[in-house]
Amino acid sequence: MAVYTEVGDDELRAFVALYDLGEVLACKGIAEGVENSNYLLTTERGNFILTLYEKRVAPEDLPFFIALMDHLAHQGVPCPTPVRARDGEALRQLCGRPAAIVTFLTGMWPRRIEPFHCAGLGSALAALHRAGGSFAGRRTNSLGVTGWRRLYEASAARAGELQQGLAAELGDELAFLEASWPQGLPSGVIHADLFPDNVFFRDREVSGLIDFYFACSDFLAYDLAICLNAWCFEPDGSFNVTKARLLVRQYHAARPLNATELAALPLLARGSALRFLMTRLYDWLNQTAGALVRPKDPLEYLKKLRFHRGISGPAAYGIDV
Amino acid sequence: MAVYTEVGDDELRAFVALYDLGEVLACKGIAEGVENSNYLLTTERGNFILTLYEKRVAPEDLPFFIALMDHLAHQGVPCPTPVRARDGEALRQLCGRPAAIVTFLTGMWPRRIEPFHCAGLGSALAALHRAGGSFAGRRTNSLGVTGWRRLYEASAARAGELQQGLAAELGDELAFLEASWPQGLPSGVIHADLFPDNVFFRDREVSGLIDFYFACSDFLAYDLAICLNAWCFEPDGSFNVTKARLLVRQYHAARPLNATELAALPLLARGSALRFLMTRLYDWLNQTAGALVRPKDPLEYLKKLRFHRGISGPAAYGIDV
Repeated sequence: MAVYTEVGDDELRAFVALYDLGEVLACKGIAEGVENSNYLLTTERGNFILTLYEKRVAPEDLPFFIALMDHLAHQGVPCPTPVRARDGEALRQLCGRPAAIVTFLTGMWPRRIEPFHCAGLGSALAALHRAGGSFAGRRTNSLGVTGWRRLYEASAARAGELQQGLAAELGDELAFLEASWPQGLPSGVIHADLFPDNVFFRDREVSGLIDFYFACSDFLAYDLAICLNAWCFEPDGSFNVTKARLLVRQYHAARPLNATELAALPLLARGSALRFLMTRLYDWLNQTAGALVRPKDPLEYLKKLRFHRGISGPAAYGIDV
Repeated sequence: MAVYTEVGDDELRAFVALYDLGEVLACKGIAEGVENSNYLLTTERGNFILTLYEKRVAPEDLPFFIALMDHLAHQGVPCPTPVRARDGEALRQLCGRPAAIVTFLTGMWPRRIEPFHCAGLGSALAALHRAGGSFAGRRTNSLGVTGWRRLYEASAARAGELQQGLAAELGDELAFLEASWPQGLPSGVIHADLFPDNVFFRDREVSGLIDFYFACSDFLAYDLAICLNAWCFEPDGSFNVTKARLLVRQYHAARPLNATELAALPLLARGSALRFLMTRLYDWLNQTAGALVRPKDPLEYLKKLRFHRGISGPAAYGIDV
């Protein structure tokens, strides 16, 4: 929950005057999203989201994200559509930050995950991957397998502050994954951060996918593995195989997974768990006084990592291989 | 900026179904307000504000606040109007908290105060006081002069952690104000917390007054003194007499201040400065790890207190007495 940049009323009025959106009626900071400042902007044309991109988003990546949302929205994916100003530009500056206005999506993200959410997510993720197939943009996944060693080295020396022996366990896992990471799986644009707070539902159907600011080019099945971790564990740490089965089955129905992808899922899930464990660990070790965001628990992802390490194969996800 | 209580989608749907508001389209936590959890609720009928009352608001006070907003809104004050469910109730429970839906007000609160804001504020405050004249409800100001000693005692022993000698200065000020606090000034319902983030403007006019959760019965001129402190000092600590003159003059034009009130203004301003200094000091001394709200600077109000202590009379506010 965060608004890092306060937008003055004069600056905002001048900014919105560049668009065909009518007069600003209201603008309120939204207590969601940890990376950027988001405002719910109400104009005479309705509700929109105004985003100011903060320091964690590289400005040079923004054209990729904007073009991707534009492409996906036009392919029918229920994602925010960048709104262009009268000069045709969707990306500009506000209060010294890159900023964009996107369409407002209806729906709410699920606070308590039920199996039907996972089924809807599977279909939506497959549709996203299919729509991304015709997108020309490319962006390296800086938080993918080739970036993990850097992440590890940024926290390893102090990992013991969180849990004794953690550095060694992470180091072993990292070495194993680097050596055995699959190659040549079907690739394309992935969301790479499709947690429940980035998926809106309305009447039990997916009504919106948001927050494309980790999107990149990588294995499509890795995106599915991220969702397995983010959606299919219960708050008590147990793995819900019913949810996993629905997620994978609905995904598979719309974008069939080949045998190599299916076989690789446990490995991809370990990699995804390691990635979120390490970024959370970094944030946990580098908290700043007065920060407005509570760091998420890194150890949640250690438990998930160990679960995937302990299974015998993808059948553990309820998949008929 | 805060959302303390997460509202689940199922709970929310069931709650909103009790109202004639149509289907919930979206609901987003607002990063404003430090006392309660506020959501921008979009339904088929438009935008509303959903508030969950957190622990700082006494449940027994809520009927007063709801009735007051209802009364003021019907008197033409641009304040949130409580929305009644089909059973006629505006106040109910959601996620174990008292909760209410109120109308959404357009406008934005000013980040940089200009003189015209103070003029508009003066008129709006007088209109609020006049409209409150026909309101039957009463609520003791627990943060008024009779409550200050309790506030003082809650922090005095540790006040030196903020600034050496602060406890003594506060103690002297408190004793002086208790002995010389005016009596018998015109009283009624006051807002008691009309800071810039509680006043919306649109096209240079006041379009909304919000956050009535400190409203109480007290001297009307004390409310004006709170505004003098909150609106008429520059960020560098200097007092802007142009803003003060506009504030008081516009107030006086709509609700004439008598000679006793005018003469009492410096004392009321000292009292108001002491009150905010002491509540901020308490919050500063009692920060909790992981809090989502940065404590405001108590010393800002020490400077304001000293300013009012140093003037010779209300003429220092630009008032022709």
